[in-house]
Amino acid sequence: MKELEERILSHGKVYPGNILKVDSFLNHQVDIDLTKKMAEKIHEHFKYRAITKVLTIEASGIPVAFSVAELFKVPMIFAKKSKSLTIGDDLFSSQVCSYTHNTNYSVTVSKRYLGSNDKVLIVDDFLALGNATKGLIDICNQAEAFVEGIAVCIEKGFQPGGNELRMMGYDVMSLAIIESMSEEGKITFQN
Amino acid sequence: MKELEERILSHGKVYPGNILKVDSFLNHQVDIDLTKKMAEKIHEHFKYRAITKVLTIEASGIPVAFSVAELFKVPMIFAKKSKSLTIGDDLFSSQVCSYTHNTNYSVTVSKRYLGSNDKVLIVDDFLALGNATKGLIDICNQAEAFVEGIAVCIEKGFQPGGNELRMMGYDVMSLAIIESMSEEGKITFQN
Repeated sequence: MKELEERILSHGKVYPGNILKVDSFLNHQVDIDLTKKMAEKIHEHFKYRAITKVLTIEASGIPVAFSVAELFKVPMIFAKKSKSLTIGDDLFSSQVCSYTHNTNYSVTVSKRYLGSNDKVLIVDDFLALGNATKGLIDICNQAEAFVEGIAVCIEKGFQPGGNELRMMGYDVMSLAIIESMSEEGKITFQN
Repeated sequence: MKELEERILSHGKVYPGNILKVDSFLNHQVDIDLTKKMAEKIHEHFKYRAITKVLTIEASGIPVAFSVAELFKVPMIFAKKSKSLTIGDDLFSSQVCSYTHNTNYSVTVSKRYLGSNDKVLIVDDFLALGNATKGLIDICNQAEAFVEGIAVCIEKGFQPGGNELRMMGYDVMSLAIIESMSEEGKITFQN
């Protein structure tokens, strides 16, 4: 998506450790207009699928997931994160290893809101190693819900998560795929 | 707001310790249509104010804050929570005591996104003791930004936060004010 790539080039900042900060428009301050345009692109790609729920993970996936859910006219669910292993009779739970923060955490979804009739579109802001996404897929599997696809704003194409998910057979749509980021801050995109 | 009150009565669940769970439509699974109607009510109340930023706190305030920001055509900022006292040259930071989780945490906003020219509408899902809201006000004060008002979906009117904020002179708008919740699950609203 051209407008997103341009915004990443003009406003993104590269930090050591392959960190890309886009907090002026995506995950701290949020540009509503750009978010809605991203959601339209995602809806365009998946609109022939009978999505029943949009699933994301708190917090920075929520704005785009909300806008996507609006276009599909379905509820949005945001999975909760907790530091400890959260287990409850009424929760689906999966363990996730965080690359950015070098810790493990649990993601949970109430059993009341996902079930075997659901067709889920997973939406998130970033895809790098794909660990959070795999946690959400694990939760969908526990719920016997069908994962119709995965949509992310920014994929770090030089990390393996996106391609692993594609190899697993998922329809993964990324609005911008970063091919490389140099320590001097130069960013290139896959075509 | 009648529709919100009805939804709280039909879908809310009361737990010991004055906990109201509304995670079927507000803060886990999100009803997009209801969220947009809530945002319209908030916009209607504050529309003559020259809001430049909508400020909330991750994660469950984000959907309604996003929708309010869309109506004002301004950016939405979600303050970040962290367990530890987060101090940085580039951050406004305030300490918050959490009633629900019985812990302290920091809320932070990057100094790049709030300044003395900003007129801020604070939006959140719940208002009880008001500690999170006061943390956001503290951050606005540090930024020398003007707090134009505070809008919340559900105020626990039997806890002091809302009235303390009104006594401080803030225009506090609550879409539903709960007067009482009994252990048997009976909920009444202020008129």
